[in-house]
Amino acid sequence: MVGIIMGSQSDLPIMELAANFLKSLDIPYELTVVSAHRTPERMFDYAKTAKERGLKVIVAGAGGAAHLPGMVASCTTLPVIGVPILSSNSIDGWDSVLSILQMPGGIPVATVALNGALNAGILAAKILGSGNEEIAAKLQIYQDTLKDKVLGTVDDIKAKHPNQYDN
Amino acid sequence: MVGIIMGSQSDLPIMELAANFLKSLDIPYELTVVSAHRTPERMFDYAKTAKERGLKVIVAGAGGAAHLPGMVASCTTLPVIGVPILSSNSIDGWDSVLSILQMPGGIPVATVALNGALNAGILAAKILGSGNEEIAAKLQIYQDTLKDKVLGTVDDIKAKHPNQYDN
Amino acid sequence: MVGIIMGSQSDLPIMELAANFLKSLDIPYELTVVSAHRTPERMFDYAKTAKERGLKVIVAGAGGAAHLPGMVASCTTLPVIGVPILSSNSIDGWDSVLSILQMPGGIPVATVALNGALNAGILAAKILGSGNEEIAAKLQIYQDTLKDKVLGTVDDIKAKHPNQYDN
Amino acid sequence: MVGIIMGSQSDLPIMELAANFLKSLDIPYELTVVSAHRTPERMFDYAKTAKERGLKVIVAGAGGAAHLPGMVASCTTLPVIGVPILSSNSIDGWDSVLSILQMPGGIPVATVALNGALNAGILAAKILGSGNEEIAAKLQIYQDTLKDKVLGTVDDIKAKHPNQYDN
Amino acid sequence: MVGIIMGSQSDLPIMELAANFLKSLDIPYELTVVSAHRTPERMFDYAKTAKERGLKVIVAGAGGAAHLPGMVASCTTLPVIGVPILSSNSIDGWDSVLSILQMPGGIPVATVALNGALNAGILAAKILGSGNEEIAAKLQIYQDTLKDKVLGTVDDIKAKHPNQYDN
Amino acid sequence: MVGIIMGSQSDLPIMELAANFLKSLDIPYELTVVSAHRTPERMFDYAKTAKERGLKVIVAGAGGAAHLPGMVASCTTLPVIGVPILSSNSIDGWDSVLSILQMPGGIPVATVALNGALNAGILAAKILGSGNEEIAAKLQIYQDTLKDKVLGTVDDIKAKHPNQYDN
Amino acid sequence: MVGIIMGSQSDLPIMELAANFLKSLDIPYELTVVSAHRTPERMFDYAKTAKERGLKVIVAGAGGAAHLPGMVASCTTLPVIGVPILSSNSIDGWDSVLSILQMPGGIPVATVALNGALNAGILAAKILGSGNEEIAAKLQIYQDTLKDKVLGTVDDIKAKHPNQYDN
Amino acid sequence: MVGIIMGSQSDLPIMELAANFLKSLDIPYELTVVSAHRTPERMFDYAKTAKERGLKVIVAGAGGAAHLPGMVASCTTLPVIGVPILSSNSIDGWDSVLSILQMPGGIPVATVALNGALNAGILAAKILGSGNEEIAAKLQIYQDTLKDKVLGTVDDIKAKHPNQYDN
Repeated sequence: MVGIIMGSQSDLPIMELAANFLKSLDIPYELTVVSAHRTPERMFDYAKTAKERGLKVIVAGAGGAAHLPGMVASCTTLPVIGVPILSSNSIDGWDSVLSILQMPGGIPVATVALNGALNAGILAAKILGSGNEEIAAKLQIYQDTLKDKVLGTVDDIKAKHPNQYDN
Repeated sequence: MVGIIMGSQSDLPIMELAANFLKSLDIPYELTVVSAHRTPERMFDYAKTAKERGLKVIVAGAGGAAHLPGMVASCTTLPVIGVPILSSNSIDGWDSVLSILQMPGGIPVATVALNGALNAGILAAKILGSGNEEIAAKLQIYQDTLKDKVLGTVDDIKAKHPNQYDN
Repeated sequence: MVGIIMGSQSDLPIMELAANFLKSLDIPYELTVVSAHRTPERMFDYAKTAKERGLKVIVAGAGGAAHLPGMVASCTTLPVIGVPILSSNSIDGWDSVLSILQMPGGIPVATVALNGALNAGILAAKILGSGNEEIAAKLQIYQDTLKDKVLGTVDDIKAKHPNQYDN
Repeated sequence: MVGIIMGSQSDLPIMELAANFLKSLDIPYELTVVSAHRTPERMFDYAKTAKERGLKVIVAGAGGAAHLPGMVASCTTLPVIGVPILSSNSIDGWDSVLSILQMPGGIPVATVALNGALNAGILAAKILGSGNEEIAAKLQIYQDTLKDKVLGTVDDIKAKHPNQYDN
Repeated sequence: MVGIIMGSQSDLPIMELAANFLKSLDIPYELTVVSAHRTPERMFDYAKTAKERGLKVIVAGAGGAAHLPGMVASCTTLPVIGVPILSSNSIDGWDSVLSILQMPGGIPVATVALNGALNAGILAAKILGSGNEEIAAKLQIYQDTLKDKVLGTVDDIKAKHPNQYDN
Repeated sequence: MVGIIMGSQSDLPIMELAANFLKSLDIPYELTVVSAHRTPERMFDYAKTAKERGLKVIVAGAGGAAHLPGMVASCTTLPVIGVPILSSNSIDGWDSVLSILQMPGGIPVATVALNGALNAGILAAKILGSGNEEIAAKLQIYQDTLKDKVLGTVDDIKAKHPNQYDN
Repeated sequence: MVGIIMGSQSDLPIMELAANFLKSLDIPYELTVVSAHRTPERMFDYAKTAKERGLKVIVAGAGGAAHLPGMVASCTTLPVIGVPILSSNSIDGWDSVLSILQMPGGIPVATVALNGALNAGILAAKILGSGNEEIAAKLQIYQDTLKDKVLGTVDDIKAKHPNQYDN
Repeated sequence: MVGIIMGSQSDLPIMELAANFLKSLDIPYELTVVSAHRTPERMFDYAKTAKERGLKVIVAGAGGAAHLPGMVASCTTLPVIGVPILSSNSIDGWDSVLSILQMPGGIPVATVALNGALNAGILAAKILGSGNEEIAAKLQIYQDTLKDKVLGTVDDIKAKHPNQYDN
């Protein structure tokens, strides 16, 4: 249901965060390398056949002058989520963020934070969950878990510092 | 199906671009003002009841320290699209872009370009179209229209400058 | 008298600088974790009950798209001091600084420097000291100590480099 | 109770926003020009005598390499609120924001948004209101007014766009 | 010999600076619109056939998330010159500059200054002139003209201000 | 005694601020156009002969990739003051500021604020005044005048706003 | 055929990437140090004699206030490729990028990414290959190799993650 | 003849570069700590007595919201050289650079590069050398040494890479 692509194998440790999240929710995904600049035909073909191959959402990560998410978005009606990746020789990530975010009118990319592949996975699930109650329910559980993790640290911290607030 | 909200009435000229796009595709939407900082209860209530009121996607626009999209996203499993708006006294839009984009792990916002409300509307349609062939077909027509508009300018420009490329 | 909150346990080493300063001046504080995005109800409740629970000032630290200080400020008449925190995957701290600083008209946050939790603690004391001579006197002593520390390095440096200025 | 100072008469239209807010809450203020760079003695004297002259908070606005708020803060135990001002030849306001915000450990300045003098006035009132129920009550009324203004625009917008959300 | 392309007709006033320079040196060019995002097939076809159609250099201008120069470069061995264009809703041009400049290893784009289409035209001529003495000679004349224009202003200025330097 | 140069006649309105200040202090200057990129020989010759022609300080202004101040500094032992100029197509002045400021070890340029030609003139006078009591005395008078101008606005402002501070 | 120069020996590890690429394509090059600020005469002489010494393209790398590429370009009709280098004390590379990229009208520098010396070497080859079929053919082979390297990682990744896309 | 001051002992390793350069030219200097924010009276007194104590130039280094150079400049007619220092918790040095560079009209600071204390020392010598032939001669020798160091690396590099250029 979700296609996860990235510009280079070096992006894998980041992009796996999206895959692992989807796996934890039993949402099927496929993950591969598609480079806008080094394999442009593969990129075009991937984007154009994505819908007929059954994908519902595409997550695309890239660094530097990151053209992959926007170019894929230009060749499909599927929603495309873009993940800016902080690569070596990037100028602090600004290049990747702006290359993905600042798409012209007509061709949106749903951009997440720098290195935000976990959030890209969650966003893909939210998009699927928008029309699927089972996924939506799992997302609600995940969101409750986040809350529980925070509350789980309250007592730890209380051991070191005073805290009268107990909600 | 789509809820469009903004932090202030002054954001309306930008945010109407999203509404108008959805209207052009016959996708129902509702549009109103919800301020994270001036009406926090309204924001919470809006976000928490959005799903049960039948919304599938929320588009939220805000300027400056733009907390609306992220806070709404924290209270719903629906996908939230954030539109950074260039307001007066903004520092060139960077405040709005970064406040919306750089969400922490767990709570994604699908961020579009500065003032990119048109793209937010298109992205909302792409999300709906992901599970709805009728909307997907309309989006394909829209994307073809974009292409035709570009091609429509080719002859104009050819009248002023030589051009042998005719594809 | 001072409530110190932070978005995540990982912010503790920075935020403890505020707590330790207040402790050194015998100003009572409480310190806990309140996440705007993962525990929004807790945040709202904390902010709304802060005044009646006897707090006079709130210090709130957060990184990335840091919404905690601004959202807390929107739910209380207490002064809120915001501490931008440089977290991993931040874009050099700009996201946190701008998300806290650039609040819209009506809802101020007293922002201090990136990772400036010590200064947040001092500012909280200055706010309390504005109406409390005992605290003001302690702050004067602290400010004199800062001066003495600088003067204490003058002789050290003189041992290595000539210096005729002896004031 | 509140001293409002600015580096140049050209900052007056911005800084009056702070004065007018305080006036609307019947909080006494004084307002004058004090330049860190052109009248350094005046600045030192102003800062050092502020407390004994009965001030409880100082609001200081300046543009460019804005040293006034930080230098005043170094000479008093009163809380100092800094207002970065976008002046001509500023580099988009970054100079003023960073010169005020990034104070070293020991000497905090409570920084508000670029040109955020209204928020500086509100913050001054919040600081006073922290120990004064009458001012706190007025601030609550002001915060409610902000909410009412937002809600007042809901019907306007509804006339142009559909909206089923009526809270 | 030189193909000049741009992402949108709105880029024409800037991109004509390149065309006009080439015309002034009697270097043949063709100029048309090719949008990476709205006409991706046209872009691919243009880039892949460029060499066999006799082009020696391609000049590509685009604004915002400017993918045209880099994508064209990925499909041809011809040198591609990229012109970042300051479009509306750009974040001060940074998006366009970084999207064009920060290409990954393997696929260079020869980037010129923001709105620097004149320099793109000159650079195209320099590339052709590298193997063509006639063009090189014309470029030398052009460079001498630049010098003469500067020297031509010396007397003007001398009329208003003293100047003993007469070289 | 002071050589004022600029990269283009369009910089004259800014650079005249330096000339006019020197004139007001009866300090002789010469002013002309010297372009690093369009008249490199003239620049080299100007810089190398500056000392023997009797200049004591050089003020050099330029915009964009501003190489003039640094290149002149590399060819003379005279102190060179650099004025970054905000020109059209500049990226908000950052290009000019960084091209002048960030000189490598060995070749300093005394950089002033963006468009800060008045300050360049004053700095030139301070450099001369460092070894010349007459100029130093005039500078003291100028600095006193700045103070008087500020104080002259105090009563104006007092007419509109209360002010008990009378130093 | 290609002259590679750099401002300092410390730039050698980066700039060798250009040399090594050219060597791999059997394109003759020469490589040496030429500092704009420390050896201005050498720089001028190098640039002015480059064409008569048989060079067709110049690649110039420098960090900080990087004047070398632009100054060389001002003294020759050869195309000059500029490589911004991230040196110590650089402000994140922005100084080098902007000093090279933002050249004034008339004097272009073909700028590549920060530390992008490999791309500078490829661009030099593309410029030569524009009029030389043998080099163009080698470049096509290189570009095919890039593609093959990407495809070579597809199976690796498939071993860890599902992937049905096999083009 | 030269006063070197810094805001904190932690700036010493950087600021010693200025001292060591002056020592190498036998130019007398004094070096000490003067903090604008922690020892404001010391700063004022230092600045006001600098001229009568025989100083000709002041070099002032500071990090973060660096007010020391500008405040010292406001209290003396001596030329003041400002050294922005990259301290911990700085936002990449931008705060320090802009706080020192962007001084308002009337009070210049001669700013050098980030951490550019060596250049501050050289600039101080250039200012003194402007009216002192002995120092000017030493500076010429220093500048020749820089050139020789560069030329000394030419042969090294030639051992690894071809180079026909022998000037």
